[in-house]
Amino acid sequence: MKRLRVIFIGHEHMDFLAEQKKYRQAIVGADTSVEVVSIKRGPETIEQPLDELLAGPAILEEVIQAEGEGCDAVIVDCALDPALPALREAVAIPVVGAGQSAFALAITLGDRFSILSPLKSLVPAYHRRIREYGLNFALASVRCLDFGILDLLSPAASDAFVREGEAAIREDGAEVIVLGCTGMSPAIPRLQERFEVPVIDPAATAILTAQTLATLGLTHSKICYPSKEN
Amino acid sequence: MKRLRVIFIGHEHMDFLAEQKKYRQAIVGADTSVEVVSIKRGPETIEQPLDELLAGPAILEEVIQAEGEGCDAVIVDCALDPALPALREAVAIPVVGAGQSAFALAITLGDRFSILSPLKSLVPAYHRRIREYGLNFALASVRCLDFGILDLLSPAASDAFVREGEAAIREDGAEVIVLGCTGMSPAIPRLQERFEVPVIDPAATAILTAQTLATLGLTHSKICYPSKEN
Amino acid sequence: MKRLRVIFIGHEHMDFLAEQKKYRQAIVGADTSVEVVSIKRGPETIEQPLDELLAGPAILEEVIQAEGEGCDAVIVDCALDPALPALREAVAIPVVGAGQSAFALAITLGDRFSILSPLKSLVPAYHRRIREYGLNFALASVRCLDFGILDLLSPAASDAFVREGEAAIREDGAEVIVLGCTGMSPAIPRLQERFEVPVIDPAATAILTAQTLATLGLTHSKICYPSKEN
Amino acid sequence: MKRLRVIFIGHEHMDFLAEQKKYRQAIVGADTSVEVVSIKRGPETIEQPLDELLAGPAILEEVIQAEGEGCDAVIVDCALDPALPALREAVAIPVVGAGQSAFALAITLGDRFSILSPLKSLVPAYHRRIREYGLNFALASVRCLDFGILDLLSPAASDAFVREGEAAIREDGAEVIVLGCTGMSPAIPRLQERFEVPVIDPAATAILTAQTLATLGLTHSKICYPSKEN
Amino acid sequence: MKRLRVIFIGHEHMDFLAEQKKYRQAIVGADTSVEVVSIKRGPETIEQPLDELLAGPAILEEVIQAEGEGCDAVIVDCALDPALPALREAVAIPVVGAGQSAFALAITLGDRFSILSPLKSLVPAYHRRIREYGLNFALASVRCLDFGILDLLSPAASDAFVREGEAAIREDGAEVIVLGCTGMSPAIPRLQERFEVPVIDPAATAILTAQTLATLGLTHSKICYPSKEN
Amino acid sequence: MKRLRVIFIGHEHMDFLAEQKKYRQAIVGADTSVEVVSIKRGPETIEQPLDELLAGPAILEEVIQAEGEGCDAVIVDCALDPALPALREAVAIPVVGAGQSAFALAITLGDRFSILSPLKSLVPAYHRRIREYGLNFALASVRCLDFGILDLLSPAASDAFVREGEAAIREDGAEVIVLGCTGMSPAIPRLQERFEVPVIDPAATAILTAQTLATLGLTHSKICYPSKEN
Repeated sequence: MKRLRVIFIGHEHMDFLAEQKKYRQAIVGADTSVEVVSIKRGPETIEQPLDELLAGPAILEEVIQAEGEGCDAVIVDCALDPALPALREAVAIPVVGAGQSAFALAITLGDRFSILSPLKSLVPAYHRRIREYGLNFALASVRCLDFGILDLLSPAASDAFVREGEAAIREDGAEVIVLGCTGMSPAIPRLQERFEVPVIDPAATAILTAQTLATLGLTHSKICYPSKEN
Repeated sequence: MKRLRVIFIGHEHMDFLAEQKKYRQAIVGADTSVEVVSIKRGPETIEQPLDELLAGPAILEEVIQAEGEGCDAVIVDCALDPALPALREAVAIPVVGAGQSAFALAITLGDRFSILSPLKSLVPAYHRRIREYGLNFALASVRCLDFGILDLLSPAASDAFVREGEAAIREDGAEVIVLGCTGMSPAIPRLQERFEVPVIDPAATAILTAQTLATLGLTHSKICYPSKEN
Repeated sequence: MKRLRVIFIGHEHMDFLAEQKKYRQAIVGADTSVEVVSIKRGPETIEQPLDELLAGPAILEEVIQAEGEGCDAVIVDCALDPALPALREAVAIPVVGAGQSAFALAITLGDRFSILSPLKSLVPAYHRRIREYGLNFALASVRCLDFGILDLLSPAASDAFVREGEAAIREDGAEVIVLGCTGMSPAIPRLQERFEVPVIDPAATAILTAQTLATLGLTHSKICYPSKEN
Repeated sequence: MKRLRVIFIGHEHMDFLAEQKKYRQAIVGADTSVEVVSIKRGPETIEQPLDELLAGPAILEEVIQAEGEGCDAVIVDCALDPALPALREAVAIPVVGAGQSAFALAITLGDRFSILSPLKSLVPAYHRRIREYGLNFALASVRCLDFGILDLLSPAASDAFVREGEAAIREDGAEVIVLGCTGMSPAIPRLQERFEVPVIDPAATAILTAQTLATLGLTHSKICYPSKEN
Repeated sequence: MKRLRVIFIGHEHMDFLAEQKKYRQAIVGADTSVEVVSIKRGPETIEQPLDELLAGPAILEEVIQAEGEGCDAVIVDCALDPALPALREAVAIPVVGAGQSAFALAITLGDRFSILSPLKSLVPAYHRRIREYGLNFALASVRCLDFGILDLLSPAASDAFVREGEAAIREDGAEVIVLGCTGMSPAIPRLQERFEVPVIDPAATAILTAQTLATLGLTHSKICYPSKEN
Repeated sequence: MKRLRVIFIGHEHMDFLAEQKKYRQAIVGADTSVEVVSIKRGPETIEQPLDELLAGPAILEEVIQAEGEGCDAVIVDCALDPALPALREAVAIPVVGAGQSAFALAITLGDRFSILSPLKSLVPAYHRRIREYGLNFALASVRCLDFGILDLLSPAASDAFVREGEAAIREDGAEVIVLGCTGMSPAIPRLQERFEVPVIDPAATAILTAQTLATLGLTHSKICYPSKEN
């Protein structure tokens, strides 16, 4: 039995954790255990790099605790992948970024993908992240839904998703759509039906990538993400 | 129960199929069924693009048959990903290339990877494939073991693997090692122990990527890989 | 006297071969002999990578036969350059791809070029090929005429060519236009008059590149395209 | 009179601040005032991204305080540019990264530069930063001195600098050398004499870039680094 | 006291030199002396590479004379950076290109910049220069004001600047605006007010970069720009 | 009968022009006329960009004269392609750069090429040119023979060529060799025999590219290389 720990940003909205756990547990199947926690302090949502800075220490605590409690892999449940290299330096178990897992799958399903970002403030950050990952060759566009992260499950947000996704395909040359957020997962099956191209949910790819790494006994390269020496 | 179909190159070495099926079945777990077939004609191994051309029609037949028989996804079990775009145009189910699945995971575990190719004749082909995939920014090197594909399980091949892998890390800046072949899988656990960096087996990543796609109901973009019109 | 062999796709439309030979012979002049053949089986036209896979073995036969019969160079008369690396591995004489010869000239006549593709199904394939060739830095766009390959000589196809070519210049920044097909050659002189930028015909550049290679005694690098060992 | 605020990492080694202020004041001249502060908590040095995460909130406090106290520009005195985008989102005055200012000058003095990193743990981080900045086309190499940041002023560190710098020129094709640290400034004039190529000190370029921005009334793009709304 | 020499193109419009000197002197402050000269022959303005060729020998004379007269750095006051590598080979003092100094600052203030070129004939030349500098990753667009260089201070030119600059931001994704000319400097303060993003004047960045190099005793790499041997 | 005009650099070594004409005439065949001229002033050889600047106006005169005298195309017989964009702006007939013609053929014969430069001072200039052309993705290396251009036909120069060419293949991954000079042509056939990869002579590719353009009635894009307006 593999144990995966999912770290959510936001410490006040604890009530939705049970539902999130159920969603992710269903994806990985019965042989893998999904645990969910929320950071204990810092911002409620990551809306731009400034929030990433503020949330960093609290995410780090959770990552270290997950390793200490014997988890096989840990997921940072935010598509901006806050502080990923730093977190990987801190532990030996795999630390999976939701965004990175989604982008890595996207480039295998088509040649060009677009990211639908909930907020305008995330747009330059996604461009920068994609450039850091070296994947700008495959980025058709980053488009903005202009919805707060806590409003992403409204019907209006789904309408914006369809509108911007179709524009990404028609005007920007997108062949694959990636959600730029993990908070829209429950709406994905219905949204997928509206598109002739794959729609990728980072929440789903993150949990499956973590499962893959745990299954194969793989973890991040310690040459790339060196441990802290004493 | 999801059904995954693995297509092997080589129609004469049928005896090893049962073992291959067992290895892959163990990776995906009991909820997913793994089926293995071999192409019915064409070359025994893919040693360079000329073999890819010769094997193409036979692989295509197997891919179409897999879809016709209700498989949820199909894997081309060769790290060069022979004829991948063409195969994806022919069917609606996901067609997973072993190489592509391995490269896409490699870029999430470190910033630079090296491919260890069994044969010298595959070296330029791997360079070309990586460029076609847009991943040359992350390629540290392609190094050659200089072993025939059918000799990869010999101890001498493992020695060559360790020697070239260490050279890739030390001289080329590799942070992750990717096997350039699916025929070395049984040796991977022992080889992984010799390295401080992740060693990625395309056979394993291919079957897990296929499982991921089947689980999420995702398939390749039909804008990128258009169906044949009549 | 140099002998160039042109391989056409499509085995049923043999009647137009004589005209094609005449057109190409006029380009290379009297000191070079042009021979034309058609593949003996496989698809009539290359409309997407799936056709490339199906035509591959038949093209290979012709390439090998051309070498056996003493030709100095062989041209694959299709702008998608089907199976080019594989064909080059099979013989020692130069194998010229019509598309590659056109793209290589295009980047010397201006900084950015657009490809006018006859069919929508070829658009992602041209993008992929250009990326494989490393020339995406110079690609302004791939635009689609939406005409079947056998209808390219109609006046309506010429109108579409002018319309899309002008749009490529005005909207995409194209400075050079490349036909994404070899079947439109007879219309080129008239089309060139309509444009202030060079219009490149892959059929013409292919035959002249083959002549250049034959004149200089050059052939493809055997390190890049290794011969099949026995 | 322009006011520039320099933020040092490390809150215990306060005694060297006066000397650092004097060095930087001499560079900018009498018309500009240089103020120096140290972060109040967090790590003593930035040796890898994990330290960047831990130091982030404390640097942010200093940046906000500098703006509140009327400074015209603020310098993060670390060549890894910790948390730069986040800091720029937090204030309206320019936030200058020492590394970025050095790299931007380096590409105007030669076509390829090498970074001499004090520690091995910073090597992948510099590669990642350069890729994020889009400057990998100009990076010849990142070489390691293997000296702790607090030992960089020893004669042995200077010897290592000369040895690795010469190797960067001879073996890696470097045409410009950039220090990967701001703690080696006093040794630069003597080191510059040993090289036939420019040796760039991020501490010096940072203070002059800040002065340039203050003089011209320029600050970072708020489209690229959006302010936090609310 | 550092001495900076500014070389203007155009030998007939000598009357405006006094004003230009005053503008630049004000930027660098009292500790640095600014001298201005005009080339003695050749074209009045650089409107395309053909002018660059014609002006080259005359600029070279001025650069050599500046070094001979003891200047600490010399500025080629044209945003196209005519003949920069050649000029740098001819002397040991720094030769600053106005365009290069502006582009190097632009990439530190935002992720994507647009150049506003006065003339259409300069548009391909700017694209080529940016590619030569390796900065195409950051170029959002080159837009054209369509004003002769001697008309750039008219109100209509300012209106065109605002219009094209806003279009660059809205349609091309520009986060920073760079003037593609040094002849519009007096209008910059008023234009900056109209934009929410930085507007960079190459005349200003050139003089400050020259001052920076003179202050730090840095000059161009002689490996990259080798002296002429005898 | 097409007329091609070849412009040599160097006005004193007129005696070798007859031989050069004969060599090039033999390549293009009897249907095309080759004329050779030398620039009337300026440097004897192009050994670095400073010579390019000095030779520019004299080359321009010859290009304009060639057009005035009815030539169909003109070749700048120097592999550094001095002032190519400017020359193309000045006339309507094709202006072929020897280097560019060789590089464009090289990328069709293998995936990576090396340039063998006669002089060390040309090495950074070739790197810059290749980057300007966008072909750095295919450049394995620029290696130096360390022979003056007028000594390239000595046996020692041929020995250096073989030594550096073999090192380029073995150490740098070159699959094609390009001479970085047009003055070594007579030695090429003998040198080609020593290599298993293509050896490309810019003098030969230039004359054949000019013939190709004249045959097809193609010239450079006037959008890319705009004519001088009056």
